[in-house]
Amino acid sequence: MYKKIGRQSVAFKEPVRILSSGTVVGKNEGKGPLSTFFDVIVNDDMWGTDSFEKCERKMYEQAVRIAVQKSGIELNGVDYLLGGDLLNQITTASYAARELEIPFLGLYGACSTMAESSLLGAMLIDGGFANTVACAASSNFAAAERQYRMPLELGGQDTPTTQRTVTGAGSLLLTCGSNKTTRKERPEILEHVYITHGTIGKVVDFGITDANNMGAAMAPAAMDTLLRHFEDTGRTIDDYDLIITGDLGSFGSEMLINLCKGRGVDIESKHIDCGNIIYSKELNIPCGGSGCGCSGVVMGGYLLKRLDACDYSRCFFMATGALMSPTVNMQGESIASIAHGVSIERLVI
Amino acid sequence: MYKKIGRQSVAFKEPVRILSSGTVVGKNEGKGPLSTFFDVIVNDDMWGTDSFEKCERKMYEQAVRIAVQKSGIELNGVDYLLGGDLLNQITTASYAARELEIPFLGLYGACSTMAESSLLGAMLIDGGFANTVACAASSNFAAAERQYRMPLELGGQDTPTTQRTVTGAGSLLLTCGSNKTTRKERPEILEHVYITHGTIGKVVDFGITDANNMGAAMAPAAMDTLLRHFEDTGRTIDDYDLIITGDLGSFGSEMLINLCKGRGVDIESKHIDCGNIIYSKELNIPCGGSGCGCSGVVMGGYLLKRLDACDYSRCFFMATGALMSPTVNMQGESIASIAHGVSIERLVI
Repeated sequence: MYKKIGRQSVAFKEPVRILSSGTVVGKNEGKGPLSTFFDVIVNDDMWGTDSFEKCERKMYEQAVRIAVQKSGIELNGVDYLLGGDLLNQITTASYAARELEIPFLGLYGACSTMAESSLLGAMLIDGGFANTVACAASSNFAAAERQYRMPLELGGQDTPTTQRTVTGAGSLLLTCGSNKTTRKERPEILEHVYITHGTIGKVVDFGITDANNMGAAMAPAAMDTLLRHFEDTGRTIDDYDLIITGDLGSFGSEMLINLCKGRGVDIESKHIDCGNIIYSKELNIPCGGSGCGCSGVVMGGYLLKRLDACDYSRCFFMATGALMSPTVNMQGESIASIAHGVSIERLVI
Repeated sequence: MYKKIGRQSVAFKEPVRILSSGTVVGKNEGKGPLSTFFDVIVNDDMWGTDSFEKCERKMYEQAVRIAVQKSGIELNGVDYLLGGDLLNQITTASYAARELEIPFLGLYGACSTMAESSLLGAMLIDGGFANTVACAASSNFAAAERQYRMPLELGGQDTPTTQRTVTGAGSLLLTCGSNKTTRKERPEILEHVYITHGTIGKVVDFGITDANNMGAAMAPAAMDTLLRHFEDTGRTIDDYDLIITGDLGSFGSEMLINLCKGRGVDIESKHIDCGNIIYSKELNIPCGGSGCGCSGVVMGGYLLKRLDACDYSRCFFMATGALMSPTVNMQGESIASIAHGVSIERLVI
């Protein structure tokens, strides 16, 4: 049975269940409006390790362990771990996978990783290659700053479009739709949340070169994937309660809304960006949160729970990734971006 | 239909056809014993660009274009591009994907990328999500040296276990087994080469910390995946003509052979390592070739053609990846590694 529809989308034969999630965040994320939705809030910058990178790795590992533990499935019953992070050579994900001992497929989609891993995970399950897949993504503010920009010790100033890399790790545990575990049996699982469709992104580049304005670089990719999803599936904005982006931030979100309006699609009243809702205003972050971990923890910790609680019935979740490196930027390249998307629906089946 | 067998392996319902390949190599690779098997040999270190990184990107893009062009399929008829490379943020693959305009799923498996992309590509096709998938991997000697070790200008010395990162890009075009295009119709395609099984690797770490001895770090991962493949599928070494590794080099290959012997499996007479056969002896490279591009061009350019020509009938191709970064090394970590494998068979169907 052929499940591809249109140029870039797939429709699953049987909706893939999101059974549980695990989220670990840092102290600033833990002070934000979503704090009660996260599983673990770490108030120590290093979490007992001796580097930001090792702290991120510990968060990644724990996020996966928490998602799996909630489900009641044994760790060695998880078929594959799919995921990545922002650090060079995705060492966070790879070294966490060493500890977890789950067969591992490493991905790199920059901040689109949570959507890329969910999409591929759902394809592996619906394709008959797995019963249970863990997907995970993480980021760490201090580790990302010193790798992509400047070490914190240099005291760099924010620009008006700066976003703050979220310190946190999110994990989703996907299973076959035929898994009918109820919340009565496992109180911490999601009961009615399923992935039904996916749209694979193309690399899009509108020529933005400012590494402090990632939202602007990524908004065109989000528009491209969203409009392609509508075209491929025949759905319209009316079919969705919510269009969720990962980390466009406030400037990028405005740009996405305007770009879509220019193409005749009004998403304004239905759009939420994970980066816009994670931090409290008191932190004075110019344009909101960013990083792989941003959509990981906001989707896993907050939005999926609201979906499960009937607050929404059908979302399109797109995480966007800026695919540049400091090297290509220094060599004069603009910031190429990508967005992958999955339809996540509340279904009682 | 459930296609997973054992803990880490999958058996495809219908063998996935490898329809064509594209290979582009640098001048040292072009002087080696396999030179007549490559599609393009580039004698200029920059290939008309102004950096090693841009040269690598151009090779990546061309390798995909060549594989697709040989097949007679239009570029926009390719469902997805799956792949990665060694440079930070896999910018080679991502920026090549921007030019190719094929929906893109970025992977990072270090030097295991050619096997990881083939495995995932075959799963997407057999799962019903695609008809045609391009897989690709690349590396560049000078770009890798300055990122992972030292810029060439510093004149670093080789150690006895040093391997040379291959400058080159390889691409495989996978299609459904039902594609019956013959060589009469498209003279440059492969006619009888199929992927039948895959084994997803676990991250393995034997505690090696020497970044100039990647072969030793990766050999345990190769052993782990090979023995797991035998256990999962019920096959033995007798079922294969050839066990191919990506870039263990001469020291790592010896180590793999000995590790397997210690577990009661003698692969010595059937083992080939891509890194051991790419360079001529005159180049005096201590331990052979390495890098994502190594297995990409040797598999795509040489071994698949020999398989198609009846020289072999069944191979197990494992590309191994060392998953460390300079940062984790400096923070005292050992080199974690992974190996993914696919069974590639000559079938007349």
